[in-house]
Amino acid sequence: MSRLWEKGLPLDARVLRYTAGEDHFLDDRLVAADVRGSIAHAEMLAAQGYLDTDDCQSIAEGLKQLLADHEAGKWQIRLEDEDVHTALETRLTELIGEAGGRVHLGRSRNDQVLTALRLYLRDATAEVGEHVAALCDAMQELADRQGDIDLPGTTHMQHAMPSTVALWSGGFTEAFTDAIEGLVAARRRIDKNPLGSGAGYGTPGLDLDREATTRKLEFAATQSPVTAVQLSRGKAEAGLLFELSLLMQDLGRLSTDLLLFYTQEYRYIELAPEVTTGSSIMPQKRNPDVLELVRGAAGTVQACLSECLLIMAKLPSGFQRDLQRIKAPVFRAIDLTIESVDIMAYLVSTVNFLPDNIRLGDELYATEEAYKLVASEGIPFREAYRRIAEQLQK
Amino acid sequence: MSRLWEKGLPLDARVLRYTAGEDHFLDDRLVAADVRGSIAHAEMLAAQGYLDTDDCQSIAEGLKQLLADHEAGKWQIRLEDEDVHTALETRLTELIGEAGGRVHLGRSRNDQVLTALRLYLRDATAEVGEHVAALCDAMQELADRQGDIDLPGTTHMQHAMPSTVALWSGGFTEAFTDAIEGLVAARRRIDKNPLGSGAGYGTPGLDLDREATTRKLEFAATQSPVTAVQLSRGKAEAGLLFELSLLMQDLGRLSTDLLLFYTQEYRYIELAPEVTTGSSIMPQKRNPDVLELVRGAAGTVQACLSECLLIMAKLPSGFQRDLQRIKAPVFRAIDLTIESVDIMAYLVSTVNFLPDNIRLGDELYATEEAYKLVASEGIPFREAYRRIAEQLQK
Amino acid sequence: MSRLWEKGLPLDARVLRYTAGEDHFLDDRLVAADVRGSIAHAEMLAAQGYLDTDDCQSIAEGLKQLLADHEAGKWQIRLEDEDVHTALETRLTELIGEAGGRVHLGRSRNDQVLTALRLYLRDATAEVGEHVAALCDAMQELADRQGDIDLPGTTHMQHAMPSTVALWSGGFTEAFTDAIEGLVAARRRIDKNPLGSGAGYGTPGLDLDREATTRKLEFAATQSPVTAVQLSRGKAEAGLLFELSLLMQDLGRLSTDLLLFYTQEYRYIELAPEVTTGSSIMPQKRNPDVLELVRGAAGTVQACLSECLLIMAKLPSGFQRDLQRIKAPVFRAIDLTIESVDIMAYLVSTVNFLPDNIRLGDELYATEEAYKLVASEGIPFREAYRRIAEQLQK
Amino acid sequence: MSRLWEKGLPLDARVLRYTAGEDHFLDDRLVAADVRGSIAHAEMLAAQGYLDTDDCQSIAEGLKQLLADHEAGKWQIRLEDEDVHTALETRLTELIGEAGGRVHLGRSRNDQVLTALRLYLRDATAEVGEHVAALCDAMQELADRQGDIDLPGTTHMQHAMPSTVALWSGGFTEAFTDAIEGLVAARRRIDKNPLGSGAGYGTPGLDLDREATTRKLEFAATQSPVTAVQLSRGKAEAGLLFELSLLMQDLGRLSTDLLLFYTQEYRYIELAPEVTTGSSIMPQKRNPDVLELVRGAAGTVQACLSECLLIMAKLPSGFQRDLQRIKAPVFRAIDLTIESVDIMAYLVSTVNFLPDNIRLGDELYATEEAYKLVASEGIPFREAYRRIAEQLQK
Repeated sequence: MSRLWEKGLPLDARVLRYTAGEDHFLDDRLVAADVRGSIAHAEMLAAQGYLDTDDCQSIAEGLKQLLADHEAGKWQIRLEDEDVHTALETRLTELIGEAGGRVHLGRSRNDQVLTALRLYLRDATAEVGEHVAALCDAMQELADRQGDIDLPGTTHMQHAMPSTVALWSGGFTEAFTDAIEGLVAARRRIDKNPLGSGAGYGTPGLDLDREATTRKLEFAATQSPVTAVQLSRGKAEAGLLFELSLLMQDLGRLSTDLLLFYTQEYRYIELAPEVTTGSSIMPQKRNPDVLELVRGAAGTVQACLSECLLIMAKLPSGFQRDLQRIKAPVFRAIDLTIESVDIMAYLVSTVNFLPDNIRLGDELYATEEAYKLVASEGIPFREAYRRIAEQLQK
Repeated sequence: MSRLWEKGLPLDARVLRYTAGEDHFLDDRLVAADVRGSIAHAEMLAAQGYLDTDDCQSIAEGLKQLLADHEAGKWQIRLEDEDVHTALETRLTELIGEAGGRVHLGRSRNDQVLTALRLYLRDATAEVGEHVAALCDAMQELADRQGDIDLPGTTHMQHAMPSTVALWSGGFTEAFTDAIEGLVAARRRIDKNPLGSGAGYGTPGLDLDREATTRKLEFAATQSPVTAVQLSRGKAEAGLLFELSLLMQDLGRLSTDLLLFYTQEYRYIELAPEVTTGSSIMPQKRNPDVLELVRGAAGTVQACLSECLLIMAKLPSGFQRDLQRIKAPVFRAIDLTIESVDIMAYLVSTVNFLPDNIRLGDELYATEEAYKLVASEGIPFREAYRRIAEQLQK
Repeated sequence: MSRLWEKGLPLDARVLRYTAGEDHFLDDRLVAADVRGSIAHAEMLAAQGYLDTDDCQSIAEGLKQLLADHEAGKWQIRLEDEDVHTALETRLTELIGEAGGRVHLGRSRNDQVLTALRLYLRDATAEVGEHVAALCDAMQELADRQGDIDLPGTTHMQHAMPSTVALWSGGFTEAFTDAIEGLVAARRRIDKNPLGSGAGYGTPGLDLDREATTRKLEFAATQSPVTAVQLSRGKAEAGLLFELSLLMQDLGRLSTDLLLFYTQEYRYIELAPEVTTGSSIMPQKRNPDVLELVRGAAGTVQACLSECLLIMAKLPSGFQRDLQRIKAPVFRAIDLTIESVDIMAYLVSTVNFLPDNIRLGDELYATEEAYKLVASEGIPFREAYRRIAEQLQK
Repeated sequence: MSRLWEKGLPLDARVLRYTAGEDHFLDDRLVAADVRGSIAHAEMLAAQGYLDTDDCQSIAEGLKQLLADHEAGKWQIRLEDEDVHTALETRLTELIGEAGGRVHLGRSRNDQVLTALRLYLRDATAEVGEHVAALCDAMQELADRQGDIDLPGTTHMQHAMPSTVALWSGGFTEAFTDAIEGLVAARRRIDKNPLGSGAGYGTPGLDLDREATTRKLEFAATQSPVTAVQLSRGKAEAGLLFELSLLMQDLGRLSTDLLLFYTQEYRYIELAPEVTTGSSIMPQKRNPDVLELVRGAAGTVQACLSECLLIMAKLPSGFQRDLQRIKAPVFRAIDLTIESVDIMAYLVSTVNFLPDNIRLGDELYATEEAYKLVASEGIPFREAYRRIAEQLQK
């Protein structure tokens, strides 16, 4: 965000800034997940005899305290902390003493990061789903309110056959419902426990119980062999970004429809004043900025998917630091999607169709007429079609 | 492929060339799927009383004949046919007479195209999965053959901890197994029956039985409402392209590893002569072109995903002709993926690790030593870590 | 195109198919450029004393003969030839005997490919420019024909201020003129002579005159040091693809405008029957498929740019075979752009604005009124704006 | 950054948050450019008689004061301000009274934004160029210091022909020099004056002198017709992003080379401790994180290019609010590029090649030997090549 090169920093500080990047900002949202993962790890260590019960308890309590303090705004991750993991470990050791250093046994930052990230992604995926469900409700409410109004059904943007607000709205509701199912399906790759894979080659010399943390953290499976973990990094993220991209594309297409309906030439709908904005030089205008910004946001989210795939591409197996750069587009896409879904649900609730402005010509019924001719006279459709076409051209 | 503008075509011919595009090439692979969809539609029409049983039977037999002839190379889709659907309908009418015109009742090209495409995608997805399974076998066979050989496990491309050929290979096998599961999951969006949605607004005036074609064509569900069908176009395709992109990324990363192992500086492996190529000016060289081409192919497949998403973006709802352009990147990606998977399976079967060239230094065991110190002395990991680090620096 | 895996090819044949790929198709368009590059190379060799004058002359005549034969359809590049370079060298040696083997002295396929490609790209870039110039003419002709017709100038797709067909059309003409200038600028990276860099490390032991081939082939500069050549591969291509992407985006946006103008709700324009198509089930419709396909083509061309950049990304320096995969998207984008520009120029020439359907309300003149108030009364614009806004709300 | 949906904001506040987005953050860097553009506009208004000289002077002085205050940290753009333009106008009116309202005469936020953005982009482009020049110096300094050391020149990552550190480094220096020239060329699209185009349809009723602001702001040309301005929005940005993408790709490829050289298997180089980082569980390791992060950053910058093109795609002509979303990826890419170039220049200055670890086999000289045979015996290259190949296989 700020421009580092202007700051005349000493060189070492620049290296820190470059390598830590935005992590101290970004990782704020990972505190709860990292605390959860660390407690599960400590409890497993204790069960395996690598940590005594008192230490385990003080680690768990200390971490919970730090989480509560963080949520209360009492501390933040600083650049010097580099990331959420170091920030927590440092503060834990300050809080409970030497035992704080024992939680990292049998764990690398590589599997720790991924554990926190997947726990977070699981929650975020569910959260996006809930917001989309509210959007479905808004579409349904619109259908309940004005579903009977006739609309021209179009192909190639040309009037084709009769449709209704209910049918139009129902198409999008199916799309959003499908998006929710897609989000659920995206959990498949999220739901693999990386904990215990260490830096990617396991923890030789220690007898860890990976299944125990899988159960504690409610993962569906333990990812194995250990070398699979770092190789898979970015895939769960990409899977979520793909689903968000499709979802945002539907929001973009809904925006396109509504922007069309809102033109003076169509004026099929009106929008509430609070979701439109004024112009700085044209007194008379009410602009549908929200819809345009949603349409643009779909481009941003799709670019986040590209960014994630680009970062992973062609890397040798084993952890590579490049993978750290995946967090930013993932968080950017999640936030922007939720904001866009919310604002769209609100906007949809203010849409008012204006039936007086919507006209369906007789020609829209041509196919139906041809079908009736087939049913009544038993002639082939092509012949019925030709006959109706002739009538219409008269 | 050919450059139209050089041909001095009359204007109308140019419009045909531009609108039909490469369809007459591309659609060759859709003949079987379109025949299958058309027969299901005809049988449903007959059951609903819109087609008499004899006509239905001659339609089904005619279509099967045309399919057999096509597979025998007796006819091809021509530019003048525009696409597979017109090609089949025209030839069917020539073959069986007037009844051929009766199959299009209650069907638009819009739902017909999508039906054929989804049937094809379902088969293609299964087919890709089979090829990937063969690649898994090749990886496993390598692990069986040379799995015990030690490899340095790396992070940041630096020796980190001890690994083996089995562990290295097992990571990729998990990735490819995950890809197969991903392909299965991608069928969710493919497996919705579009038939009966007509041009996107149903078939008013006709009483069609959409569930019947869903059963006949073994779709998992009937897509509804009818307006959902065209809005969903491209999503099943994008879902498959996303899975192919992840799969190809793994192939690309496997290539990166093998290219590294094959350098003179590593020389961890040798490759069979038949998967390497010579140089036009350097007599001594054997080049691993196949691996480079696979790595490059991953970029092409990822671009196919982008292309599909770009084409769908921001379109109004209802059918738009832009969507026709999705076929080319989908077919391109499927073909390139299968070819790349196959060639990689073959190459992997020729990989020979050269254990004499692989050296693991003592420092790779530092973490394991630290773990043992923790287990034996009960000191915190951080302290054990410091102690080992000091020993290593001596 | 064809699906290799279905053919039951022996393994070695598959490796050839995979490594040669589509080159034997794609390279057809490079024959002229490769002949030109080879003759320049041979003449330089002769001038430096590495080739006697008779051999040089028979090489030049042989190559010209092969080019003429190729243009006459007498031979084509076959899969077994692998690429244009081998195809020509093999046939040259058949034609003129042993001397044919002397032209490759001091040249690698790496610099040879790039020379042919840049010569081709230079011509293709000029050719695209000419087609765009014809599109500018079509836009200008429309402005001459119907420029005086009023149009609502819109922002946010809302009527904002008065405009005209001439202003609307003039915006696109500026865009296309800018595209032509962009194409000219894209030649900067094309216009560097790679010949003489060999496989990327020069031709030690030979005294070649690189400046001589630079002059003969009319390159602007000799690319040096020799290691720069392979590192730059893909950049000239990407530069051209970027310009084609911007150009196609403008064509896509022009399509969006025209599709809007062509809806029943606007009906600002009519299109000639020969650039519209009929429907398979709706007798009454004339669909603007061409415009939709152009809009979709913009997505394809943008994906070609992504593909090119993806293939280059992260490669070690020095030639890598991945780079061969850049040719396909470059040729795909050039062809599709020229076809789209041509069809759009033709379509634009048939556009007929229908002034009776275009209505500009009084409110479009609000800004102008406010400006006049400022000019006449000397009040701040914000006050004039408020006063006009009040009048409009009455 | 922050997650809006968690904040329980009232609906109107959400609309503001969604439409203003991150502008109040992003626009901080546009204050100087907007002040410069506004003063030029005010002076032009005064010269045309629309503003009296005293007002013009107090506007200019007020804006300069606000700029100085902003740089001194005395005020920042707040969310309520929405953007830099409103922030400045509001504060100007507070500072100098009613005259502050007069500067917006004959100007829309649409042309004002674009003017500020282009002035900023012009400066940023020059600034990136300076940083790249420093990187060229670092590469050159490395060549001066260790250029004579032999390196194997590779193709396909295989030893091919002899090279040197100077040749290797010189290839990248040419690439970075080319990037600087590319940045200069990218100014062509930046250097068009949008001011005076208003909302995209000019300023009917006012007699503005657009050439005057073109001169004052040192633009190369006045963009016209007025409708061209909004249609071009995003193109200058995309042009810069394209150049940054190519530049970052070269940085990524330099990283790939150095990461290879830094592996234990190569160990061609050592890196200074301050540009490497330690491991959390492996005491012995020094990791080249900086290089990996630079390689990853190339993916991010390429995604910014895609994002920009995606946002522009398919929009109707005339201003659309989507275009606001282009700012974020542009600023993201500029910042990340400058940081990456800087850190790489620093890292390159610490690279130390270790000649004892670099071995070039005799076979690297095979091509040179073949060339000598041709020169001495006059035999065709193909024959000399075969003879050397036979010797090497003995």
